[in-house]
Amino acid sequence: MTFANVGTLGAVPGRRDELAAHLSRRSDVLGEAGCLLYEVGVGEDPDTVYVMELWTSAEAHQASLQLPAVRESIEQARPMLSGVFGGFRFDVVGSPLRDTP
Amino acid sequence: MTFANVGTLGAVPGRRDELAAHLSRRSDVLGEAGCLLYEVGVGEDPDTVYVMELWTSAEAHQASLQLPAVRESIEQARPMLSGVFGGFRFDVVGSPLRDTP
Repeated sequence: MTFANVGTLGAVPGRRDELAAHLSRRSDVLGEAGCLLYEVGVGEDPDTVYVMELWTSAEAHQASLQLPAVRESIEQARPMLSGVFGGFRFDVVGSPLRDTP
Repeated sequence: MTFANVGTLGAVPGRRDELAAHLSRRSDVLGEAGCLLYEVGVGEDPDTVYVMELWTSAEAHQASLQLPAVRESIEQARPMLSGVFGGFRFDVVGSPLRDTP
C-alpha cells in the first residue's frame, strides 16, 4: 500500500535554503529503496522546510532510514536543523486523478 | 512554480472512509485545472482524512476552488466534515529524484 510521509523541518535561522538544497540533492538511492515521490519546498515561514514523500510501503520508508547514504545525508543535515519537526503520515487509499487506488 | 497543498480534514465520527472515498472519486476536471498529483489517505486517527496535492501553480489551485464541479464536490462533502482542518502549503524548490527543480 502506498505510504505517504509529509513533514516540516525547522532550520536554524538563516540556513533554511541551504537545508532545502541539501534535501533536494540528487540521490538514486531513494528511488531504488522504493521512493516514488519526494518534493522539497519552502513557504512563508523563513525557518521551515517542507517535504512530501510517497513510498511503495511504510516498510520501504522505514528501511531507507538505515541506508548508509541516507544516514550520511541526515548527519550532514543535522547542523542545519533546529530540532523542531512536524507532519504526518498516512496510507494512500485513492486519487481523483486515476481509477485505481 | 509547482505548488504543494497538504491537508488534514476532520470527519464526523463514523464517516471518515466515506469522506475519503468521496475525495477519491474520479474527476477529470482537476487535471484540466492544473492538478498534477492528488493523493487521499487515512492513518491511525479514526476521524481524519489526509490529502496531498501538487499543482502547476498556487493560482491554478486557487482557481480550481471556483470551478462548478469542485464547488459541488465540496458541498457534497460538507455533511461529512467535522470542521477541523489542518495542513500547510509550500512552493516546490526541488527533489532528490530528479535533476531539475
